[in-house]
Parts: sequence; C-alpha cells; structure tokens
Amino acid sequence: MEHGLNVGALFLAFAAALIGAKLFGELAERVGQPAVLGELLAGVLLGPSVLGLVPLSDAVLELAEIGVVLLLFEVGLETDLEELMRVGAPALAVALAGMLLPFAGGYAVTVALGHSALTATFVGAALTATSIGITARVLSELKVLATREGQIILGAAVVDDVLGLVVLAIVSKVAGGGQLEAATVARSGALAIGFLVAAIVIGIPLGRRLIRVVELANVRGVLGAMSVAFALLVAWAAKAVESAPIVGAFAAGMVLARTNRRHDIDSALKPVVDIFAPVFFIYVGAEVNVKLLNPAVPENRPALLLGLLLTLVGFLGKFAAGFCAWGKVRRAFIGAGMVPRGEVGLIFASVGLASGALPEPVFVSVLVAVFLTTFVAPPLLKLLRPRAS
Amino acid sequence: MEHGLNVGALFLAFAAALIGAKLFGELAERVGQPAVLGELLAGVLLGPSVLGLVPLSDAVLELAEIGVVLLLFEVGLETDLEELMRVGAPALAVALAGMLLPFAGGYAVTVALGHSALTATFVGAALTATSIGITARVLSELKVLATREGQIILGAAVVDDVLGLVVLAIVSKVAGGGQLEAATVARSGALAIGFLVAAIVIGIPLGRRLIRVVELANVRGVLGAMSVAFALLVAWAAKAVESAPIVGAFAAGMVLARTNRRHDIDSALKPVVDIFAPVFFIYVGAEVNVKLLNPAVPENRPALLLGLLLTLVGFLGKFAAGFCAWGKVRRAFIGAGMVPRGEVGLIFASVGLASGALPEPVFVSVLVAVFLTTFVAPPLLKLLRPRAS
Repeated sequence: MEHGLNVGALFLAFAAALIGAKLFGELAERVGQPAVLGELLAGVLLGPSVLGLVPLSDAVLELAEIGVVLLLFEVGLETDLEELMRVGAPALAVALAGMLLPFAGGYAVTVALGHSALTATFVGAALTATSIGITARVLSELKVLATREGQIILGAAVVDDVLGLVVLAIVSKVAGGGQLEAATVARSGALAIGFLVAAIVIGIPLGRRLIRVVELANVRGVLGAMSVAFALLVAWAAKAVESAPIVGAFAAGMVLARTNRRHDIDSALKPVVDIFAPVFFIYVGAEVNVKLLNPAVPENRPALLLGLLLTLVGFLGKFAAGFCAWGKVRRAFIGAGMVPRGEVGLIFASVGLASGALPEPVFVSVLVAVFLTTFVAPPLLKLLRPRAS
Repeated sequence: MEHGLNVGALFLAFAAALIGAKLFGELAERVGQPAVLGELLAGVLLGPSVLGLVPLSDAVLELAEIGVVLLLFEVGLETDLEELMRVGAPALAVALAGMLLPFAGGYAVTVALGHSALTATFVGAALTATSIGITARVLSELKVLATREGQIILGAAVVDDVLGLVVLAIVSKVAGGGQLEAATVARSGALAIGFLVAAIVIGIPLGRRLIRVVELANVRGVLGAMSVAFALLVAWAAKAVESAPIVGAFAAGMVLARTNRRHDIDSALKPVVDIFAPVFFIYVGAEVNVKLLNPAVPENRPALLLGLLLTLVGFLGKFAAGFCAWGKVRRAFIGAGMVPRGEVGLIFASVGLASGALPEPVFVSVLVAVFLTTFVAPPLLKLLRPRAS
C-alpha cells in the first residue's frame, strides 16, 4: 500500500468541504437563499485561489464525481418516468430553444469583440448546456421536483446535457481541423439518444430482477450497495458510449423508481448523498479563480467585459427558452431553471483551451459566464418558485 | 474539469467491488463463514492477477481508505471508552506479547533460511501488527464487539497499530543506514501515544460542543456530514503526527459515542459504511498476486516455503499472545482475534521492498504470511466465538 495518494491531504480536503458546505449552506438558508448557493460560495473560499484548503486534485475530483452521480441517481429515484414523458414535447422545445439562443448570442458577441469564428463557435457551444446537477438540487430543495415546471426543467436539462455532448463532439472535431462529416454527427447523436432509451427499456426489467435477487440476501446493506452499483454501472455505460455519466445515473434512478423498493433505496441513499454531493458543489466553486475577477487589475478588464456580455446573452437565451413551454405553467420559473451552466460548460471551456481554440482571456470570460449563471440561478429560482401542486 | 482521472474506469471498478463484495459475502455466510472472508476472496478474483476488474489504482485506493476510516469510526461509535479502559491492562499484555513473539519467530526463521539480519528485522517487524480493520469487522459481524473478549482484542489491536507504526519508524531508520537514536524512538512513541490520549481528552468536550452546534442547523443531513468531517479531521491529525488514520477515526468514534446523538450518528453512518467499507476489503484481496502462489512453478517454491513458515510463527505468536489475557475470558478467541495482519503488515513489506531491505522473494513470503493470517482468522473466530454476554 505504498502509493502516490496523499491520504492526509485527502481527509483534510474532504473534511473542509463538508464543514464549509454545511456551514455556508446553513447561512444561505438563514438569509433566505437555497443552501446550494452557500455551498458554491464555500467552494470559492476553500478553493486554491483563496484559502487553498480544497485543491483541484484528482482525489477531490473523484469524490465530487461520485457525489454528483449519486445525486442524480437520487433525483432519478424521485422522478416519475411517465410524468416526465408527459412533458416531453414542451421539454424538448425548451431544450432546443435553450441551446440555439445562447449559442447564437455567444457567437455574435464574441465575433463582435473581434475574435475568430472558431473561437466564437466554442464560446457559443460552451453556453448551450444547462447544469442538471445544480438545477436538480435547487428544485429538490424548493420541493418542486414533482411539479409540472420541475418536470419540464428536468426533462429539458437532460435533453440539453445529452445534446450538449453531441455538440462537444462536433466542435472538438472542428477545432482539431478535422473534416466534419454528417455521418459522425448522426452517429454521435444516435448513440446518446439511443443510450438513454436503451437504458430505460432494458433497465426496467433488469432493475426489477435485481431487486428480486437482492431480496434473497441475508448480509447487511445489500439493497443500498447493489442499487449504487447499478447506478455506477449505468453511469459507466453512458460514459462508454460518450454520453454523460450523470445522465446514466439519472436513468438508473428512474428505472429503480419503478420497483417496489423505491423508498427503501431512497432512504439508504440519502445519508450517502448528504456526505458526497456537497463535495461536487464545493469543487465547482473551487474552480473559480477570484484573482482573475478583480476589475481593479487592468489586464482582467477585457476578459471581464466579454464575460459579463456572455453572462447576459447566456442568461437571456436560457430564460427566453423557458417561454417556449406551453400549458398551465410558470414559464419564467422554467426559464430560470435552465440558466445555470456548471459542469458541461466547464468541459467545453477546458477542451477549447487545450485545443487552442479558446485564447486564455476568452477562456476566463467563458468561466465568468458559466459561474455567474450558476450563482444567479438558485436565488432567482427561489424568487420565482410556483406554489407546490 | 479536463483531468487525468478516468471516471469511467473508476465507476466500473467501484460497481464491480460492490457486486463482488455482496455476492461473495452472501455466499460466505451461506456456507457458515463471516461475510468479510467472502469479500476478501472476491477481491482476489477481481484484482489484477485474475479478472483485472478492480485495479490497484490511486482512485480505488482512495475509496478503500475512506471506507476503512468510516468503518473504524463506526466501530469507535459502538465502543464504550470506559469499558475499553477497564480491560486496558490485559489488552496491553496481549498486545506486547503479540508483538514480541511474532517478531522473534519471524526473525529466527528468516535468519535460519540464510537471510541477513536486516532482512530478518524487517520480516519480524512486518509480522507484529494486527489488522484492526479486519478484526473489528469480524467482531462486529459475530456481534461480540461488546463482550470482554471483544474489548480486549480491540484494545490490543489499537495498541498494536500504534506501536507498530513506532516500530516502522525505527526499522525504516535502520534500513536507511541512519543512526538509531533513543531520542527518535522515544519521540515517535510519545507522539503516537500522546496523540491518542489527546484525541480523547480534547475530543470529548469538542464532540459535545459539535453536537450542540449541529442541533441548531436546519439544512438536511448536517449531523451525518459533520460527524464524518469530525472523523476525517481526527484521522488527518493522526496521520499528521505519523500515527495511523484509522486509529484517529476509531478515537473520533469513541468520543462521539459519549454524546446524546450516538444512535442518530450511527444510523446516518451505516448506509455509508455499507457502500465504502467493502471497497477496502476488496482492495486488500486484490493485492494478492495469485501467480506468485502457484507451487507448480519451481521459482515460487522458496518464497512459498518461507511464507508458510512465517505464517506459522505469525499465527502461533499472536495466538499464544491471547493466553496472556486474564480474567474470565475465552483466551483462544482473543488469540484468534489478534491473528489477521492486513494493512500495517503490507506497509512494512512495501517499505522494506522499496528500501532494498527485503529482496523480492522475501517480500512475497511476507505477503503470503500477511494474507494467510488474514484469511484464516475470520473462520477461526467464528469457530471459537464465546456466547454473547
């Protein structure tokens, strides 16, 4: 067991993340804000650019990834598949508008400020995907996951995440100088959508069988452990077909929600989510480098200006998309629910930076937009929340 | 979030570990063996030398380390500090005899087979420390943690682990060719013992204060998260003074056991332990390289012979140590409880290999002894178990 892993540093970071998340989550609630906003802010404070107690290391990232997968699994468990399919059409409309509008806005602003078309394409693409993790967490906190608005937001965010990865495959290809072939795009899209359908169609009988097998067991904690294993396997499969692990975990949750042990799984899962999900929000917050955000430093200003403009078009595009929903729903709430970017936007930005398509200052601008939309959403959602049905 | 971590591989390994642990744990129980034996065997199968589904990567090790820390925290929560202190004297006698006898036996056997005194010192030292993780898990499974025998074993294993690390500091120094100074030894010992005393003395009022603060919180899951943070911090502090993180986690558990929320913490913790502790046992099993254990390969035979002899002296030394306990107790059960080696033995072997003190074949012999003592203990404990008091 001699190894490269610094166990001491990991334990300290994990403990700091838990304490920071719960303390700031509580403070946020006391001033009438969702707890997740406090957790994000705690992450900024604990991250490398301020206190440095939570490093952006692989070890911490690992806990964050497990946390967000378990969170989405739990959200899936609390989601009714039929209910979600009933809002399929408006959710799709919201998702598509919510991708096109921010893409167009981001592209236009970036080109207008004198950047290349390639850079503008990456910027636009980075603004397309809603953060399903943050959205789901706020909806759950506000207890509106089961409302029609909640279902539309969730459905649209899933579509968004799936299509966002297709867009990523496309722009990465373009940035690499490769020829973009229609067949590649079609294949990538078909895989992502096919996976989700297959996970649900195959998953439902498989999940029921799993529960029957689990009921035969005598040893302690089998239901929880096997459910988590199921979620991890579907998340792994999602990743293997180049879709998002969190979409897989969400599908796994919806599938197990259709078994008779739904509530037992949920109660075995809650304490685990309570401990690991905060690490994800802390990690997202920790990625904010506050030094680049200081407007008193003249070199920061161009990036900040572009960042603010991107935040504006990113915000307005998603918010407007909410108004593409129909039926007796609070459209402004749906729009607000689509606003936070988070993980997928960060992946776009990182790929763009690594490939050279995004110059460093533009990379910072994208991060500003990703984070500002993420931070503005929780209080906005709380403000606009519909009465629980 | 572009990074070196392979999230897909991690999810797959985690899922395989959970499924293997629960399946083989169940099978072990069905044939009348403790579940942990099944988990260790599942680890051998899943590890790199057989199926290769669970790699010995930092990512998996991280989960294993968190698992064993949470397990020892849970064991601490179920331990009564006063009860443990009441058996302090016999536990100390068992611990000391259990270090001296295997050390002497291991040293003698290794020298007799023609190895150097330095090599023999490392071999002897590697046989000194009982695996508190495996022992505690079996005791808990057999529901004898609260018996006098269980308390003596646990107390002796803690002493063993603390002193084992002092011995490690000493032999590392010798292997490095450094001068061994009495002051260094004294400092190392004082630190390890002082830490344990300090953790308990400072921890008790601190733990009570923590619980009072936690009771003021409104957000979800604060008690579980803050208790885990507390355990991680004490584990980190233990590591910082060069003691064992699991000893720190155990102390943290004993400290929080003295608050009025003991049972709530325990029930918030159980589902988390159910999911992470198996990864530790799988990891330990995965470290077994079955290829080196095949006696049909002539090159393996000298190492296997020494390994079997070391297993014998390692077994007899610890088993005999159990008879140093006094009072109305089942001494053979105590001896059996001291037999498994596991983590600390592996650390010794790795340090010895890295420093050159242990030639590769002797390293394999030590691993054989560590694993055989580990695998033989659970069924033996089950066989010898006293009636629950």
